[in-house]
Amino acid sequence: MIKILVDTLGGDHSPDVNIQGAVMALKENPDIKIIFLGDEAVISEKLSQLNCPMERVEIVHAPDEISCNDKPTDAIRHKTQSSLYKAFEMMRGNDELNALVSNGSTGAIIAGSVLRLGRIHGIKRPAFCPVMPTMNQGMVAICDSGANVECDDYMLHQFAIMANLYLQKTYNIEKPRVALLNVGVEPEKGDTVRKNTYQLLAADKTLNFVGNMESRDAISGKYDLIVCDGFAGNVLCKAVEGSCLEMLKLLKATFTKNLKTKMGALFLKKDIMRLKDFMDYNNYGGGVLLGCAKTIIKGHGSCKAITIKHCIEQAYNIEKNHLRNLIDEAISHMPALA
Amino acid sequence: MIKILVDTLGGDHSPDVNIQGAVMALKENPDIKIIFLGDEAVISEKLSQLNCPMERVEIVHAPDEISCNDKPTDAIRHKTQSSLYKAFEMMRGNDELNALVSNGSTGAIIAGSVLRLGRIHGIKRPAFCPVMPTMNQGMVAICDSGANVECDDYMLHQFAIMANLYLQKTYNIEKPRVALLNVGVEPEKGDTVRKNTYQLLAADKTLNFVGNMESRDAISGKYDLIVCDGFAGNVLCKAVEGSCLEMLKLLKATFTKNLKTKMGALFLKKDIMRLKDFMDYNNYGGGVLLGCAKTIIKGHGSCKAITIKHCIEQAYNIEKNHLRNLIDEAISHMPALA
Repeated sequence: MIKILVDTLGGDHSPDVNIQGAVMALKENPDIKIIFLGDEAVISEKLSQLNCPMERVEIVHAPDEISCNDKPTDAIRHKTQSSLYKAFEMMRGNDELNALVSNGSTGAIIAGSVLRLGRIHGIKRPAFCPVMPTMNQGMVAICDSGANVECDDYMLHQFAIMANLYLQKTYNIEKPRVALLNVGVEPEKGDTVRKNTYQLLAADKTLNFVGNMESRDAISGKYDLIVCDGFAGNVLCKAVEGSCLEMLKLLKATFTKNLKTKMGALFLKKDIMRLKDFMDYNNYGGGVLLGCAKTIIKGHGSCKAITIKHCIEQAYNIEKNHLRNLIDEAISHMPALA
Repeated sequence: MIKILVDTLGGDHSPDVNIQGAVMALKENPDIKIIFLGDEAVISEKLSQLNCPMERVEIVHAPDEISCNDKPTDAIRHKTQSSLYKAFEMMRGNDELNALVSNGSTGAIIAGSVLRLGRIHGIKRPAFCPVMPTMNQGMVAICDSGANVECDDYMLHQFAIMANLYLQKTYNIEKPRVALLNVGVEPEKGDTVRKNTYQLLAADKTLNFVGNMESRDAISGKYDLIVCDGFAGNVLCKAVEGSCLEMLKLLKATFTKNLKTKMGALFLKKDIMRLKDFMDYNNYGGGVLLGCAKTIIKGHGSCKAITIKHCIEQAYNIEKNHLRNLIDEAISHMPALA
């Protein structure tokens, strides 16, 4: 039985989607136990409506929400009745509680993970690793997507090692194609950090490093993992997401423009919906905070129930496959920091 | 009469598109004179086919091309028969030759501009400033899009001042909405460079600074100018371009999937073509290297004749509106570097 804490507060559609998603995960995975954090009365009420397997459920009353307006480091220290505060408090030092799913404040989740739970031994800084859909119906992981706005080559090398193991163990990709985000594909491109990272990744025999890549190819399907600092990673993820959504909006406007275009849209409806589905980030779970001492999954703030279900299953897979131990082991073989 | 040098070598479809585009610009703008650089025989032959106003044309024989495989700094020093080498050689110290249009090697263009022509007095580093189409049929400028992979706050402030003047003087935008590319919109977001730049831009009364922005909103139409370092700017531009192109590809595949979707596509053809046109970077000219002592316009490597025409008209507008003098004047009011 793997126990997973589910924060029911902080998302745009919380607590409904969080509770619904968790119940979906519980029903499909008999080996999961969920500990809900949030308003106990609300959670109990919702669960009773959803025909939930209550024998694998616990509820912890934590009515306060850490919002995006709270200063993360302050909130995670002082908002003691908040769901995230209580989650970290419970996980800290308890070997049976190792996984948390939340779609609340990213800042508070990172602050809590780092300050309360700590890192895997040898990890300089944990990094966020979400996945994005690619045009050939696959997916690509981005690490780091925003936890660290300033990175050195040693950190980027660690991100590559961690995310590579993550893809191998939980997505069953035997030899992930690892690329370094850069301003051009030639080895000598970029700043000093990029040039040094290129050398480190190329020399690491545990990685299938395919070289530098440009952001224009991010969703082409050529890569399984894009290694980058959190600033560039954040720019990349949001630019791809934003552009695809803007294109869909424009397409929708085209379809509803006049009678003729509406007729055309009728013929295409099913296939266009498939296109939209495919670009829907809700189908791809959340980002994992790799390098943290426990398994932390962050869903999109505006995510749906199905995303929370995927996030919970992600946490379950990571725990079942002992990813944290494997990262610990891999990092122990790296040369120590100078 | 404004003289503009046009490099006819180095692009994917050179010299044809360069020569055709230049002739289009010559015909529409009686106040432009073009100096072509490239293979003289080829250029003469093409011009004779295009009914070109030859009284406003000069040809400089420079048969060598600097390719992407050449090391830019070496090539710009030693490839003396190349079109770019000769262009910089001619412009250097000649007050009548102040504008160059090329769609050749970006690295060689930057190297030549910086090493041979120099910067406007007080400018720490020139920056690339292309424009991208936005979803509301407008456009947005990005500065820097890749000339400087490492930037400090002083440079970013200069990029803002230069690009702001560029938009005011050549695009007639009275108060460009200037935003700083960051990982979130709150003032305290990002690394030290971003935090300091935020303060500088907010304090500069010559700018209509609207705060931080996220890459997901780059093409939303909310901003006229996005200020960023060349690494993040490059990731942004290529991610937006790549995502839009991938979406169009997917859309095309959907349209040609079966008889039903083909029928639908027939009804939509005209409007979808408009969508494609609108996303076509060929309609938006090239990037200008702001802060250089002369006016340098770089077109996309794979650009068409119409882009070269737009690039030449951009150079013409910049010269006619004395942008370099205005930048010189504005920078002279900045506090000197510590």
